[in-house]
Amino acid sequence: MRIKLINPNTTASMTELMGEAARAVAAPGTEVVLATSRSGAASIEGHYDEALSVLGTIDEILEGSVADAYVIGCFGDPGLLAAREITGAPVLGIAEAAMHAATFVATSFSIVTTLERTRVISEQLVNNYGMQNHCRRVRATNVPVLELEKPGSSARAIILDECEEALRDDRAEAIVLGCAGMADLAKYLEERLHVPVIDGVAAAIKFAEAIVGMRLRTSKVGDLAYPLPKPYLGKLSGYAPAKLFPASERERTACMAIRRS
Amino acid sequence: MRIKLINPNTTASMTELMGEAARAVAAPGTEVVLATSRSGAASIEGHYDEALSVLGTIDEILEGSVADAYVIGCFGDPGLLAAREITGAPVLGIAEAAMHAATFVATSFSIVTTLERTRVISEQLVNNYGMQNHCRRVRATNVPVLELEKPGSSARAIILDECEEALRDDRAEAIVLGCAGMADLAKYLEERLHVPVIDGVAAAIKFAEAIVGMRLRTSKVGDLAYPLPKPYLGKLSGYAPAKLFPASERERTACMAIRRS
Amino acid sequence: MRIKLINPNTTASMTELMGEAARAVAAPGTEVVLATSRSGAASIEGHYDEALSVLGTIDEILEGSVADAYVIGCFGDPGLLAAREITGAPVLGIAEAAMHAATFVATSFSIVTTLERTRVISEQLVNNYGMQNHCRRVRATNVPVLELEKPGSSARAIILDECEEALRDDRAEAIVLGCAGMADLAKYLEERLHVPVIDGVAAAIKFAEAIVGMRLRTSKVGDLAYPLPKPYLGKLSGYAPAKLFPASERERTACMAIRRS
Amino acid sequence: MRIKLINPNTTASMTELMGEAARAVAAPGTEVVLATSRSGAASIEGHYDEALSVLGTIDEILEGSVADAYVIGCFGDPGLLAAREITGAPVLGIAEAAMHAATFVATSFSIVTTLERTRVISEQLVNNYGMQNHCRRVRATNVPVLELEKPGSSARAIILDECEEALRDDRAEAIVLGCAGMADLAKYLEERLHVPVIDGVAAAIKFAEAIVGMRLRTSKVGDLAYPLPKPYLGKLSGYAPAKLFPASERERTACMAIRRS
Amino acid sequence: MRIKLINPNTTASMTELMGEAARAVAAPGTEVVLATSRSGAASIEGHYDEALSVLGTIDEILEGSVADAYVIGCFGDPGLLAAREITGAPVLGIAEAAMHAATFVATSFSIVTTLERTRVISEQLVNNYGMQNHCRRVRATNVPVLELEKPGSSARAIILDECEEALRDDRAEAIVLGCAGMADLAKYLEERLHVPVIDGVAAAIKFAEAIVGMRLRTSKVGDLAYPLPKPYLGKLSGYAPAKLFPASERERTACMAIRRS
Amino acid sequence: MRIKLINPNTTASMTELMGEAARAVAAPGTEVVLATSRSGAASIEGHYDEALSVLGTIDEILEGSVADAYVIGCFGDPGLLAAREITGAPVLGIAEAAMHAATFVATSFSIVTTLERTRVISEQLVNNYGMQNHCRRVRATNVPVLELEKPGSSARAIILDECEEALRDDRAEAIVLGCAGMADLAKYLEERLHVPVIDGVAAAIKFAEAIVGMRLRTSKVGDLAYPLPKPYLGKLSGYAPAKLFPASERERTACMAIRRS
Repeated sequence: MRIKLINPNTTASMTELMGEAARAVAAPGTEVVLATSRSGAASIEGHYDEALSVLGTIDEILEGSVADAYVIGCFGDPGLLAAREITGAPVLGIAEAAMHAATFVATSFSIVTTLERTRVISEQLVNNYGMQNHCRRVRATNVPVLELEKPGSSARAIILDECEEALRDDRAEAIVLGCAGMADLAKYLEERLHVPVIDGVAAAIKFAEAIVGMRLRTSKVGDLAYPLPKPYLGKLSGYAPAKLFPASERERTACMAIRRS
Repeated sequence: MRIKLINPNTTASMTELMGEAARAVAAPGTEVVLATSRSGAASIEGHYDEALSVLGTIDEILEGSVADAYVIGCFGDPGLLAAREITGAPVLGIAEAAMHAATFVATSFSIVTTLERTRVISEQLVNNYGMQNHCRRVRATNVPVLELEKPGSSARAIILDECEEALRDDRAEAIVLGCAGMADLAKYLEERLHVPVIDGVAAAIKFAEAIVGMRLRTSKVGDLAYPLPKPYLGKLSGYAPAKLFPASERERTACMAIRRS
Repeated sequence: MRIKLINPNTTASMTELMGEAARAVAAPGTEVVLATSRSGAASIEGHYDEALSVLGTIDEILEGSVADAYVIGCFGDPGLLAAREITGAPVLGIAEAAMHAATFVATSFSIVTTLERTRVISEQLVNNYGMQNHCRRVRATNVPVLELEKPGSSARAIILDECEEALRDDRAEAIVLGCAGMADLAKYLEERLHVPVIDGVAAAIKFAEAIVGMRLRTSKVGDLAYPLPKPYLGKLSGYAPAKLFPASERERTACMAIRRS
Repeated sequence: MRIKLINPNTTASMTELMGEAARAVAAPGTEVVLATSRSGAASIEGHYDEALSVLGTIDEILEGSVADAYVIGCFGDPGLLAAREITGAPVLGIAEAAMHAATFVATSFSIVTTLERTRVISEQLVNNYGMQNHCRRVRATNVPVLELEKPGSSARAIILDECEEALRDDRAEAIVLGCAGMADLAKYLEERLHVPVIDGVAAAIKFAEAIVGMRLRTSKVGDLAYPLPKPYLGKLSGYAPAKLFPASERERTACMAIRRS
Repeated sequence: MRIKLINPNTTASMTELMGEAARAVAAPGTEVVLATSRSGAASIEGHYDEALSVLGTIDEILEGSVADAYVIGCFGDPGLLAAREITGAPVLGIAEAAMHAATFVATSFSIVTTLERTRVISEQLVNNYGMQNHCRRVRATNVPVLELEKPGSSARAIILDECEEALRDDRAEAIVLGCAGMADLAKYLEERLHVPVIDGVAAAIKFAEAIVGMRLRTSKVGDLAYPLPKPYLGKLSGYAPAKLFPASERERTACMAIRRS
Repeated sequence: MRIKLINPNTTASMTELMGEAARAVAAPGTEVVLATSRSGAASIEGHYDEALSVLGTIDEILEGSVADAYVIGCFGDPGLLAAREITGAPVLGIAEAAMHAATFVATSFSIVTTLERTRVISEQLVNNYGMQNHCRRVRATNVPVLELEKPGSSARAIILDECEEALRDDRAEAIVLGCAGMADLAKYLEERLHVPVIDGVAAAIKFAEAIVGMRLRTSKVGDLAYPLPKPYLGKLSGYAPAKLFPASERERTACMAIRRS
């Protein structure tokens, strides 16, 4: 099985870090293909960065060899539903994967994320995913995304402190890491906190394997059906659905079978 | 006061239709500037179309002469929070404006929209805006967006039928039109239905005037602060915040005062 | 356009203060007519004060010259739905107007109100208006309503302190003032807090202009239809609907048109 | 124990009907005192009727001999929180009592009420009381309140039909009667429907006995504390709290003890 | 009337304590029959203890003389819906009774319970019973259940402290005691706190009297109908519904009448 | 990896059916160990059946060789939290697994279950798991659990019909099968419906593999910590925590590490 792990941040070193986390948990038969977005922000830290990251994610899904599933490696799950429209293969976000995983091993969790300004984004995801009764609180550390990978940074210590506060003050029973750039911290934190610490990259890879293993594919009835054919203008003219998904293929994929057996 | 009404759909005739609705309600001192997105889908009918429409909307906010407020003329309110990040001027979506207006004149409403596949998008907005207790139901007519403006189309009759069902079966007390392309239908429907029929374009123009009249500007504390300076790569390198919002201006705008007077 | 701003508190000096806030934002063609309730509490600070204030508000809507819209100037929005029943003209509450305005310029806000005992009332409005995900917290200052206008009072300083706590501890991105008597504080606070500070009186005046400008009138289908004719006894016999709304007028108003063109 | 059952509708025959339902369930030591409001609508069927009914309810609580508990006999629970402010004795509404009772004997219920226009009022109560997961649906029969007691009326048959639809289509497991004027229908309906049919008048009387039996009194900390002393003007000057609740008594009642033993 | 008060904890001294609280409030004609579960945990402090307590509760309902109502005396309301299936007599839990009682005398309350680990259980009940807007917070004292009845224990002082924090920090207007073992503390606390303090045992006894007094019985349509006849294996073979509820009796009870007159 | 799939229904043929579904999706290195509960109902179809099934599930977790994860094979997820208390290994319910899986491949789903009386149980799970915005409706077919495996039964046709109604009337985009006994229907239905059809047994096996693959174990901080040592009486005396989990082991497991590496 081939899972394409797309980093919507355009920083390749971060992709490597995510790739390590992914390969550490991938099953023997799983090939994790790494892709770094070729357009957009070096680090995604807000609505604007997120909105502009979707283009690069779409490029990675439409180009290159086909994958059995895709993972979007940014905790805001930017472009998740748009990505699900353009392929029948399952697409998972790391925030949804991490939160779902947390509910399997704990009754409550807190999210520890980077900047104060991204806290609202996480809170909106908590609502969208129906996690209001499970998520105790979203906590911002004010550690910038790219600071996470700098050698000598105090990021680890700050994040550990915040997690300890979450356990003590929120009565959280597990920690969800609120940034793809924290993927390498799960083990470090778990050894010190003695509660489950969930990294969304690992969770999304494993759940993608699970969904593919169930032979489930994205529903093509309703809002996730392939985009309707229509003209696209200007610098996005290349993204017109008719060019990307010839009718025959759209129909074939839609009818052919969701379950491939 | 200058309000820029941006059509994220790249179909200019639709912009004209929206412009008529806007100018019909604009106050004497209000100049409505029309802009049709120069990149993206001819009509926005899904998550993919929406996600790709944000680029064109951002272009229209960043380029050209400055406006006192912006209106995003698509019922999915695509890119609303991203747009609010990049300017201190108020930015309104037509879906939020329509729903808020409806609650001022009716205890409940139903939304009548275009395609079945966009229904989910409207339902998610209903949740995001806290309208669950006011919105009885979102109803899809399966009339495509661009069909709305075709002469001889049966779109009007179909929409009228659906509205009548909403009044009868949902016990809706008002109708919210779920597409910018329906902006010219409000009067026609209201004369036949005898309940308030709310077009989001008109509502957003009037509420934009109201917000500007209150001298309110978008909060620059928290998630709507200007994007942080950082590199942007590839075909989006021109969107790097540092290029668009020099630090001095960012700070000036942020500190200068929200209330201008 | 004539907007009647009704102060349900029977303190005329408070009406003047609200009137100043209203006229400061009213559009050139808008005449703001002030009315102080002639019966009930000098200041509304609880469920009992609120319930008894509705009579005076109804009197002001039914008597005197007709207005194009009405604003109820008390943050509990007392009698709002009853008032909407007895006229086709839009009726706005200042709490709903303030909260809706806040969501147009900030993703989150806190309400700063007067007495601890009114906090519950504001919290119930937050729920009724679907603002649970936007409103971070309702904060009571324990400043009585009438203390607000006393010269030499420490009210301003106390309220400023509470707002600063809201920004720091609630991570609020905007402040909603929880009392009509605070209408003159918005500018003072905004200059010090550098976030939007929303006064409901100004918001309701501007949104009333907007709703009238859209030619929307209150839905007369459902719970906001004119009261049914029936006997009223005792000291309220004068409020019998049949006396106030002759059938012909009721029908005429209902059928005649919601949209007046 | 003396329970005062107040009918906020000014129709005495309806009070008698409610009194019969009350006395049929009252415990041996309970004296049910009946009171018909002396001001306001003959029948309460909307927000306006409700708002104006509160005055008469307050009169009945403040005048006459003291009761151990009060019941407000209208399914909209009009003025409930205001009434709780002005006495330490428990005050119960029949809608809240009926819904709470229903949850003790069934996992779900539907409410069958009178006019379409009162449906919204019931739906708002369902939300206020947290009954969204228990209440399947509010059903209006369009039988006017006063029609219920007319001999030869088809009201019974219509209501029975609506209940049967509720069992079949809503999968309700119990019926809550949505009007005080239906108090005499519970037995008739239960014999035909074979599910619990809950009349709020009976429920409120029994729960009032229960609360008094627990020696619980209304909390005087927070929003239900006695109204603050302040001037009341005009035709409501007699309702000024200082006249009604001398400070000594207020303090005495508040301090004296909630639990009287 | 005979009410059977079942203590699902297998500690008889605790049953006595609950019995005293019950008899202190029971009406003259009410016989409170005490039963201590004969199988399971000495004290219920978690999901596992709760799950295993249900067997003993079922035994007490199925054996011995018939009661008019049953009360399950553990704040987690373990097995409540299962118990409702196996009898037509009303079954009440003390947590639901306490929370419902609290809403009749206060707009908000906090729950003060025993161990941190049971907090989640109380929070889930708050959600299940729709009390999210009424319950300010669930507070754990870390006092073990059996510590409550030990002479010389500091439990009382710790609980009083926690209640005072609830009033001050949560702005609670009433206290709900979160453990059957606290039944004797209500008076002690109320005298010191001057707000309603609700013990679920007393509340459930009084509400059981009320429900029986209304002649309501558990709905046998839907999920609370008698268990379907089917084989039961192994050590639970004696619990097969067919043995316990002969078809004739099941039908008789179901049809016979919910209202016994 | 060894996953123990426990059928809380005591019907062995049903376990075989579930085992086939499990093995069809299990990864190469996964050993699925089947266990049929040895005590309780032949088929679980209500609260009573569920409550009594927990004993058998606990037996299967405590006895026999240790597993890396456990799956509870009944759509009501009976005893899930109790089971999580008594082992550090992950425990998954098939209802939660199925619903979580559905959200990864569709924006909305409907649940098709067996008897009307189990519908409420599924609806409560939908709420507990935060799936209210994803689950369109729970649909009962009134096919008894054991009818599902009878040769010549019309169960398949009835369920297919109900699924088609769900797609048409609920606008569901996926189907969740609401009974472990339907595990063999997923492929049959998917081929006819052309939308994802999710069987919880397969989903739980794959998610259990995923959670184990992430090296996550159940949080032992908070409500899922090992049961506290205390006496257990009567026929359940063998379930006393001290006997089952010697302190040393409890501590060792708790401290040792959640992440085993």
